[in-house]
Amino acid sequence: MSFTKFFNKKYLNIAPYDTAGEHLELERFIKLNTNESPFAPSPLAIEYAARAAANLNLYSDPDCTQLVNKLAASLEVEPENILCGNGSDEILNFIFAAFCDETQGAAFPDITYSFYKVLAEFHGVNYVTPELDAEFKINLDDYIYNRRTSFIVNPNAPTGLLLSLDDIERVLSSNPDNVVAIDEAYIDFADSSASAVKLINKYNNLIVVQTFSKSRSLAGGRLGFAAAHADLIRDLKAIKNSLAPYNINSMTQAAAIGALEDKNYFDNNINLIKEARAFTVESLKSLGFNMTNSQANFIFAGHEKISGQKLFDELRAKNILVRHFAKPDRINNFIRVTIGSMSDMKIFVNAVQEILNKND
Amino acid sequence: MSFTKFFNKKYLNIAPYDTAGEHLELERFIKLNTNESPFAPSPLAIEYAARAAANLNLYSDPDCTQLVNKLAASLEVEPENILCGNGSDEILNFIFAAFCDETQGAAFPDITYSFYKVLAEFHGVNYVTPELDAEFKINLDDYIYNRRTSFIVNPNAPTGLLLSLDDIERVLSSNPDNVVAIDEAYIDFADSSASAVKLINKYNNLIVVQTFSKSRSLAGGRLGFAAAHADLIRDLKAIKNSLAPYNINSMTQAAAIGALEDKNYFDNNINLIKEARAFTVESLKSLGFNMTNSQANFIFAGHEKISGQKLFDELRAKNILVRHFAKPDRINNFIRVTIGSMSDMKIFVNAVQEILNKND
Repeated sequence: MSFTKFFNKKYLNIAPYDTAGEHLELERFIKLNTNESPFAPSPLAIEYAARAAANLNLYSDPDCTQLVNKLAASLEVEPENILCGNGSDEILNFIFAAFCDETQGAAFPDITYSFYKVLAEFHGVNYVTPELDAEFKINLDDYIYNRRTSFIVNPNAPTGLLLSLDDIERVLSSNPDNVVAIDEAYIDFADSSASAVKLINKYNNLIVVQTFSKSRSLAGGRLGFAAAHADLIRDLKAIKNSLAPYNINSMTQAAAIGALEDKNYFDNNINLIKEARAFTVESLKSLGFNMTNSQANFIFAGHEKISGQKLFDELRAKNILVRHFAKPDRINNFIRVTIGSMSDMKIFVNAVQEILNKND
Repeated sequence: MSFTKFFNKKYLNIAPYDTAGEHLELERFIKLNTNESPFAPSPLAIEYAARAAANLNLYSDPDCTQLVNKLAASLEVEPENILCGNGSDEILNFIFAAFCDETQGAAFPDITYSFYKVLAEFHGVNYVTPELDAEFKINLDDYIYNRRTSFIVNPNAPTGLLLSLDDIERVLSSNPDNVVAIDEAYIDFADSSASAVKLINKYNNLIVVQTFSKSRSLAGGRLGFAAAHADLIRDLKAIKNSLAPYNINSMTQAAAIGALEDKNYFDNNINLIKEARAFTVESLKSLGFNMTNSQANFIFAGHEKISGQKLFDELRAKNILVRHFAKPDRINNFIRVTIGSMSDMKIFVNAVQEILNKND
């Protein structure tokens, strides 16, 4: 990149996140490319947000008091264990700032949410990216006793593979002097209750990160949060109050409260996604696809008869957007497909079938 | 402050912003303490925000395309001259990151928006805070040829005093190798059209910062923006896309578009604030107050017969919240009073009169 002469020399080598192509609002597309929910927010979330809009002349609560109380009750922790962020991206930034100094450094898989690398570069952190194994699994030995601040997405993206809590505890207990961040953006879609939130008072080095963007249908509201031991939350709050004291707008705080209150709607949507995922997995298997055992609201699939790029292109020509990663080479033949509604997934499966037949 | 053993050594001396006491939602108070608008957002802003709430399952536009286009048209600049932030606080953070390296350092008045100091400390910037003169005016010589990244709030807070564009141009032209940020949070309340936005293509080192929190009645929506030469905006965007690619939620983008479209409502509210300000200034003068010539939506006033702290306390006892700054000593005897509706200001003036009579 090129910058003006005024630009801070420290940041000359940053590698900003590229949102190009991910954000298309063209009505004709079926969007299976950014792991959004196909379902509108809960009616209660919409109602509360609309009500909050009428009072926007007043500043939002910098402590998100009501929302934090509601979240804490829902997670069975205390309010002092929660910090809200402008999307989980902001929480991740706070963690990089607070817990990755030049000596400690960071570790995260070579294949995972690409924003970690962006943040590591920005903060000038010495980071390593251990390779996933041949089956795209995290090799636990890369994180046990690694003496780095570890970031593990669980279930991981774009593979959808889930680590057990036992495995996570091995990482936590072997790194008592380092923070371990477990990014649970997709945890609500896992078959079993696998969240590490229940461990936050057992391990004072654990930060669990969650988001309202996927299972809560609030991607456009921008809300994520950290759940951790109160001391770690205090550290993160010091960063937050140095950068963005009023980081969450009032409407999003209200919408999130509505989403939490409407538990039936949430449970029902999770079930619908799981059904559509099972249907999609079954269908693609019968068409000869290789797939990981995804526990997320997306699947990761490749076929030996067609390249990932070609499949991406041909789906796009049929107005279906999925995600294809050109790098690293090992995943070049895969596409990541967000699980939409059952009707969307039927259209998707039919389209894939047509593409395979044509290329046979 | 005390931190965990995990905390980044670099940040051990940060001084986070203290929001305590500023945020009270107790209904019984007349809130004249945080420079909010007494008027609800435009009905159009509320309507658009409510509509956007129904689509929150989709990510917000990371480029705020529609809003930026609308803003650019309103400011008579190009979309490439605009970057939106999660409040102007986020824009200020981007500026500190992008344009204050260890050698350049920063400069801002000793009496101004206190968040500058927080950011300077956080970024480890070598900063100076030249004193305002005896009349609380900025001494221009402190900024001319100062070879630092300068931050000037115009009109300044809490004094309300306005620098002329001629003065600003002297700072800009004498510092061709340094960025000059003009923070125009309160510019819409100035008597004359004093915005530096019209200079952004004349000076490639100028960044104008504005906010929707005051004159647009959207404090709770969190929206600010930078207007600058396209090359500076490109620098800032690289920082933004390294930290918070999806920084503005969809509802706020929509609300801001509504606020911009409803120009009559905006103009009318500005006039109402100016009228209430004139009434308040007149009334306090007749009660013997010293005041600056505020061009903002607040006044800065002190009285020789009562201390600032006592006035603050007694107003609070009458359920009126204003702002008092204990430090520096020079402003210890002043209070900052946000201009609310005319009826609020009449209640405020009566309360002040009662307090003065009682203490006579």
